Amino acid sequence: MTKTTGHEWPQLTLGAFDELVSAVSNWGRWGVDDERGAMNLLTADRIVAAAALVRTGRSVSMGLPWNTEAGPDNPRPALHYMTQLGDRDPGEPQTNADFLGSDFHGKATSHVDALCHCDFRGQLYNGASQSTLGSAGATFASVEVLEHGIVGRGVLVDIPRLRGLDWLEPGTAVLPDELRNAEKAEGLEIGRGDIVLLRSGHYKRRQTLGPWPPFYLSAGLHPTAMQFLHEREISVLGADGDSDARPSPVEEMLSPIHALALNAMGVHLLDNLQLEDVAAACAEENRWEFLCVVAPLRVPGGTGSPINPIAIF
Amino acid sequence: MTKTTGHEWPQLTLGAFDELVSAVSNWGRWGVDDERGAMNLLTADRIVAAAALVRTGRSVSMGLPWNTEAGPDNPRPALHYMTQLGDRDPGEPQTNADFLGSDFHGKATSHVDALCHCDFRGQLYNGASQSTLGSAGATFASVEVLEHGIVGRGVLVDIPRLRGLDWLEPGTAVLPDELRNAEKAEGLEIGRGDIVLLRSGHYKRRQTLGPWPPFYLSAGLHPTAMQFLHEREISVLGADGDSDARPSPVEEMLSPIHALALNAMGVHLLDNLQLEDVAAACAEENRWEFLCVVAPLRVPGGTGSPINPIAIF
Amino acid sequence: MTKTTGHEWPQLTLGAFDELVSAVSNWGRWGVDDERGAMNLLTADRIVAAAALVRTGRSVSMGLPWNTEAGPDNPRPALHYMTQLGDRDPGEPQTNADFLGSDFHGKATSHVDALCHCDFRGQLYNGASQSTLGSAGATFASVEVLEHGIVGRGVLVDIPRLRGLDWLEPGTAVLPDELRNAEKAEGLEIGRGDIVLLRSGHYKRRQTLGPWPPFYLSAGLHPTAMQFLHEREISVLGADGDSDARPSPVEEMLSPIHALALNAMGVHLLDNLQLEDVAAACAEENRWEFLCVVAPLRVPGGTGSPINPIAIF
Amino acid sequence: MTKTTGHEWPQLTLGAFDELVSAVSNWGRWGVDDERGAMNLLTADRIVAAAALVRTGRSVSMGLPWNTEAGPDNPRPALHYMTQLGDRDPGEPQTNADFLGSDFHGKATSHVDALCHCDFRGQLYNGASQSTLGSAGATFASVEVLEHGIVGRGVLVDIPRLRGLDWLEPGTAVLPDELRNAEKAEGLEIGRGDIVLLRSGHYKRRQTLGPWPPFYLSAGLHPTAMQFLHEREISVLGADGDSDARPSPVEEMLSPIHALALNAMGVHLLDNLQLEDVAAACAEENRWEFLCVVAPLRVPGGTGSPINPIAIF
Repeated sequence: MTKTTGHEWPQLTLGAFDELVSAVSNWGRWGVDDERGAMNLLTADRIVAAAALVRTGRSVSMGLPWNTEAGPDNPRPALHYMTQLGDRDPGEPQTNADFLGSDFHGKATSHVDALCHCDFRGQLYNGASQSTLGSAGATFASVEVLEHGIVGRGVLVDIPRLRGLDWLEPGTAVLPDELRNAEKAEGLEIGRGDIVLLRSGHYKRRQTLGPWPPFYLSAGLHPTAMQFLHEREISVLGADGDSDARPSPVEEMLSPIHALALNAMGVHLLDNLQLEDVAAACAEENRWEFLCVVAPLRVPGGTGSPINPIAIF
Repeated sequence: MTKTTGHEWPQLTLGAFDELVSAVSNWGRWGVDDERGAMNLLTADRIVAAAALVRTGRSVSMGLPWNTEAGPDNPRPALHYMTQLGDRDPGEPQTNADFLGSDFHGKATSHVDALCHCDFRGQLYNGASQSTLGSAGATFASVEVLEHGIVGRGVLVDIPRLRGLDWLEPGTAVLPDELRNAEKAEGLEIGRGDIVLLRSGHYKRRQTLGPWPPFYLSAGLHPTAMQFLHEREISVLGADGDSDARPSPVEEMLSPIHALALNAMGVHLLDNLQLEDVAAACAEENRWEFLCVVAPLRVPGGTGSPINPIAIF
Repeated sequence: MTKTTGHEWPQLTLGAFDELVSAVSNWGRWGVDDERGAMNLLTADRIVAAAALVRTGRSVSMGLPWNTEAGPDNPRPALHYMTQLGDRDPGEPQTNADFLGSDFHGKATSHVDALCHCDFRGQLYNGASQSTLGSAGATFASVEVLEHGIVGRGVLVDIPRLRGLDWLEPGTAVLPDELRNAEKAEGLEIGRGDIVLLRSGHYKRRQTLGPWPPFYLSAGLHPTAMQFLHEREISVLGADGDSDARPSPVEEMLSPIHALALNAMGVHLLDNLQLEDVAAACAEENRWEFLCVVAPLRVPGGTGSPINPIAIF
Repeated sequence: MTKTTGHEWPQLTLGAFDELVSAVSNWGRWGVDDERGAMNLLTADRIVAAAALVRTGRSVSMGLPWNTEAGPDNPRPALHYMTQLGDRDPGEPQTNADFLGSDFHGKATSHVDALCHCDFRGQLYNGASQSTLGSAGATFASVEVLEHGIVGRGVLVDIPRLRGLDWLEPGTAVLPDELRNAEKAEGLEIGRGDIVLLRSGHYKRRQTLGPWPPFYLSAGLHPTAMQFLHEREISVLGADGDSDARPSPVEEMLSPIHALALNAMGVHLLDNLQLEDVAAACAEENRWEFLCVVAPLRVPGGTGSPINPIAIF
């Protein structure tokens, strides 16, 4: 690592990255067969404490609209077709119905990554083999792990607000110190079982300047920030990008945060969230914590699910 | 209407049904352009009160697994295909990904019906025209109304428990008196803004005896029960069937509950829920109310969404 | 109309276009209920004559590869997912299988337009109402009309060859005189029942320069060319674009050729063909006519079908 | 093998089957890298000879209608959704369009099996490894091999006609002697490069008695018939079932014909054809040979394609 100033950040060698993997690994921590990873940290008492945050009765979506339009950030647009238009069968009432389809991973659909989503060097979280997946889906650490939902304290880490910007420029990597500064500015401390939501202002930028290809250029966390989040024992990490900064700060690694979170730590990721509404609500409520509920579809063998996470104040 | 004894129920003429429609109608109640219907009753104070029900920190899914297998209750099976198996691109980490697709209305997928789902005599809720829908979807009362989720008090009305049965036989229509009896047995009162969940034991029967065609034979509410729910000012109605009893107790009407709820009252419906787990949890917790969170996908113009509703105790 | 020189072409007023519609209309020609249109001209003797063109036993595809990649000419990319990878069931042999999906109209998939594809001022071919279509598909002039295939003489009209170019620049509109010149150069005469295939070199340009948005810029026929093709009594018109030149030479009309062919004349269209291979084969064989077989999928109520037309020399 | 009488047939041990595999194998015959298999036998002279069979100019579909209805023979129904209904954009003309989707292998869609469809003991045709397939499709012997179509002599082997029946009962296995008898009755000889089409009357039975699960019960060829077809050097085998008789006459083998044809011989299969129309046409024309054209979609990496094969008399 080299020294940095301001909002610059260090590049990591593959060797340094491997050390980081070891440092944050939760493999074996909850048993050799564990498929839940850091969801084990989101215990009942954490849920009760999170529910106690509901004081004004305001609920806010953190999901994007279903996006059927191809674009630089949506090369595999979602499908939405009407299947009935009140004209199918005799009798009353009549039915309007539709078909939804999505290859939801990518950069256009709010979704959760199951731990099995990430194959790092032939292995999944906890050392399970990539061969546990096949054409029928995953048999280890699929989205079924989340069948009862993710319910806990959501903490919005609003970096553009901290910096006094509308958004972080794509490419920006956020260092752990800035997470600590955000905590102070927001008057809270990230802790065990938390659902941490990193706002870069991605969606605001997209709405203002139009879409760009985030496959190559996105704001996100610097890999060293994962050590901080590991120490704080978070359960879930979400972002309005996909948590990874790109170009990647790690040599030869496309998505180091995915490898660290999903693979080493067993931390589920929430990708492509829409954090503008919740950021505005937090500012109005003057608090950056809330009850967060994510309810993935129960897909046997699924590698994730489209989601619409809800913040409740 | 004719007098009934025991668990029999009256047949309604179309004229009697029309009177019921008028009696429960909320058209115009929240303005001529209102698209939210009874969601207007689920106010911030109701959300705060619901969150206060979280005491043990237990979360329970009320959704069915994604069902890709055709059957008598699933003639349009959902799709689940793997799109990546760690073998697509060079570099690390690798990705596992999948495609999900569903024509989700029907009897096999847990979903919410948007108000625009139901076309009754050419009109939608609040008198909007069926012609507000087209091949691009709905422009009135689509599922976007629910973008910030449904968050409120869930009340499980467990009829088989009340009757001492494993399940209600398909075809059974539940009368309003039985809802009142259930309230007493459960020590609560259904009220303004509630998300009422009617358990018939559908899924338990399916798991025990196998699937049947619920298009023609299902346990649900008798239409007169909707007057009771209207008086209590509920917001949302869910069931492990689709709330309609079939054969329909109303002459010439396929789905009278759908017409009454979605069309007249503006009450969103949650269909094909899995209420076995939550029924067990309620019995263990000895309370039939909980914080309920439903997070539909944000589909512009959508007539509903697959869901995995979460009960939090 | 204004006088033109060289490869310029006149702009048509809507009035002039309406006269053209009347001039080429086949409505009523084969009965008021006819759904086959100009397919009525492709009689058995024409099929026998076309088969007699097979002399060297060479077959050539005129279809594009299935295109799953989004791009300026493919905003709704086709789907191709593996559904089995030799890993599903016990026993031998094992199966590899896949799912194909496509919203095939557009500019990226070789397909046939059924006559019902084109709604011109509320009417389809032969005066049928647009209301004959609904969410279940078409009940008039669907692709089922073509269930036994299109079998006849294919005539490649190779305009770039005539002009000594690699391709026509997008935007070019081909006038009827040039079709006559092409006939002479190719030593044939377009006639009754023919399947006329217009090469602009679209695919060669795409392979050389990359894709562009043909929705706004494409080479095709000038509307006046349809009068010539009407007089020659062709059955089917195909092109490597979609036969329409864009910007449209007719005021206020997006796709005048579609209206003239599908709606007025009852001439099926073959869109987005790949005519490079067949052009090379024609040049080598020194003949621009061949047996042409198109085998649309038999989709009840379908507005068309993906196709791979085969030229047989 | 045991002796049989009448229409009984022998059961084969796995050892006997393995000998059959060796006897009919074409591995290496056209080079170690060959992906075309018996398509190598369908040479230009065979195409010219087949085209000479066109004498009356009658074309007949041998495909089934696109089947969107679930049933015992269609557990994965095809999709057909309207995507435009003349209501999408401003301007004229307007568009009607639809989406088609299908996991087409199975028993409900007429389709061609590419050679890569069949994984026998980890290997494909010509000894290629099953690992040549992945989530992106096949890299060996995909349906692209057929990009220029299958054009040749079609020979309908109409077994029910020979036996004086409407159809063969599901379960029937046809022996090689009966193929020889059919040749005599039809006044022709199966030969090099032929596209042999086996009619069992499957579709007539389905139309008459309703669908059944052909996964377990179907009429088809006895494995020993493949030796006969190998000696005659056919190119392609089609059937109104999937060519396999079930229950399988070979111990431990689900689909021995698939293994023999696709894997050992390199003979492409056409499954689930509709041979009723062509059988009637053959009887009227009093000839059981015709020009046959099959035009699979050009799917890169595809394991097959839905098809509508055309017979031309």
